[in-house]
Amino acid sequence: MSLTIGVDVGGTKVAAGVVDEDGRIVEKVKRPTPAGEPDATADVIADVVLELLNRHRVIAVGIGAAGFVDESRSTVLFAPNLAWRDEPVKKRVEDRIGRPVVVENDANAAAWAEATLGAARDQRHMLLITVGTGIGAGIVLDGSLYRGHWGSAGEPGHYRVVPDGRLCGCGNRGCWEQYASGNALVTEARDLAQRAPSAAVRLLQLGGGTAGGIDGPAVTQAAREGDAGALTCFDIVGSWLGHGLADLAAILDPGCFVIGGGVSEAGEILLGPAREAYHASLTGRTHREFADVRLAQLGPDAGLIGAAGLARLPT
Amino acid sequence: MSLTIGVDVGGTKVAAGVVDEDGRIVEKVKRPTPAGEPDATADVIADVVLELLNRHRVIAVGIGAAGFVDESRSTVLFAPNLAWRDEPVKKRVEDRIGRPVVVENDANAAAWAEATLGAARDQRHMLLITVGTGIGAGIVLDGSLYRGHWGSAGEPGHYRVVPDGRLCGCGNRGCWEQYASGNALVTEARDLAQRAPSAAVRLLQLGGGTAGGIDGPAVTQAAREGDAGALTCFDIVGSWLGHGLADLAAILDPGCFVIGGGVSEAGEILLGPAREAYHASLTGRTHREFADVRLAQLGPDAGLIGAAGLARLPT
Repeated sequence: MSLTIGVDVGGTKVAAGVVDEDGRIVEKVKRPTPAGEPDATADVIADVVLELLNRHRVIAVGIGAAGFVDESRSTVLFAPNLAWRDEPVKKRVEDRIGRPVVVENDANAAAWAEATLGAARDQRHMLLITVGTGIGAGIVLDGSLYRGHWGSAGEPGHYRVVPDGRLCGCGNRGCWEQYASGNALVTEARDLAQRAPSAAVRLLQLGGGTAGGIDGPAVTQAAREGDAGALTCFDIVGSWLGHGLADLAAILDPGCFVIGGGVSEAGEILLGPAREAYHASLTGRTHREFADVRLAQLGPDAGLIGAAGLARLPT
Repeated sequence: MSLTIGVDVGGTKVAAGVVDEDGRIVEKVKRPTPAGEPDATADVIADVVLELLNRHRVIAVGIGAAGFVDESRSTVLFAPNLAWRDEPVKKRVEDRIGRPVVVENDANAAAWAEATLGAARDQRHMLLITVGTGIGAGIVLDGSLYRGHWGSAGEPGHYRVVPDGRLCGCGNRGCWEQYASGNALVTEARDLAQRAPSAAVRLLQLGGGTAGGIDGPAVTQAAREGDAGALTCFDIVGSWLGHGLADLAAILDPGCFVIGGGVSEAGEILLGPAREAYHASLTGRTHREFADVRLAQLGPDAGLIGAAGLARLPT
């Protein structure tokens, strides 16, 4: 059975794993990301890969990174958390390791993993929506990762859901990820704690007594305990999520949506209101089927596993 | 050179044409659509096709109709203007004419024509947006018509651009086609004429003296004459159009958008503000390319030509 390496390059750590054809991680190592030093980041990637190459026979390497990757899957055009601008990641790493490298957007890599080995392996057309700090996404159509003309497809986190809405890190206003992400969840919870503290007693307790202390895991924990205030926050964010799924279904009519990312660890607490809003708002809903809305199955390693899987494909 | 027949089934007329491999229409005939009689409509389609078969050697027939077509391209699930509900159009027509028939959404058929023979024949990933009474669309990805899991892909006219916005014929509120269509253009012009008649002198003149008399062609004519009021209406609608293109580009990153439909006959009067809004609002615009925004080339026959082209493909 042949092995490939998948690398997940995040803002705080670089995780690399040796992965077999079934998506099993044989060995995994991590290093801190040298923040703000683009050249050093590529070196760290090469270092961890070389370390794994010492111990495993590996045919190719896939790298997933949060950012825009060009259509040739070589260059990271822009990665907000990595200080990369037009960074030739493929060449830099290949020069050091002597194996073929493909570079991919991290959410695209995770979508490929879920489509081939995870929650959507029975589907030809699927979207992965990762609900974390923001919203990431990957699109698999006709069984292939869809990348677009310039490699920038799959960024529905930045389609506009509210004209003149909340300011987004991308510079626009009203982007979906400002309403249906972990940040949005925390915004709702802190807002509740500030404006209606009597409805946010448990949230404030978990936040150490201040609205500003409430974070995503606190909202999830309170919601799991059945706290009405926290559940309201999930209802609001889940409803925005579901409305977005209806918009994406109007455009792409996929067989299923897979919901991943940290906020999806709340499970049905998020997916319930999302599914409800999706069913209530899909255009033409009385004359068509609803795509499944499923939880991701591969967890935080999906990006690494997907990058390793993409490294297997003919280039 | 082999010939196929393309049929465009509209709410008022059925147009059928014999089309060659280069998309040239060899002969075309039209019949009124028997409104409200679904069985009679299929009969009219079969009648015009049989008439053309008497005079031409034809290998297959493609039918384009405004509505949801199932994934097997056989049944029209729902066609608001044709009284069709789960209508087995393929079988009904095949039984009468003895040739293979494929059924397709009319905007999908038009997109196929523009992608293979029209404005986007140099592109692998394109979207056709037809701006008529409403908004129709078709999506060609990797050189193939993208239909989605249930055949309902390509309806961005019904993604939501304004929460709690204008009521749409689909039953939802805030759909794109309520802001970026011919109906929206007329709404803006009539609104202007009612609220600020001194800014709408020419529009009112063309409308026979009343706001309610202003129609789409009147707004286009006034705008062509340089009328400031009419140009403002196009700026508003074009801007909504361009914002929508930015949303679609965030999701699909196509190489080009082709703009068709009756309102696109205004040319740059519509495309100018659309392109401007698209360039101003595309997410990540400082790190990526802009898709071309082009006028459709094949005019009102695009649906017929595309249906004839789709009939050539292996099923």
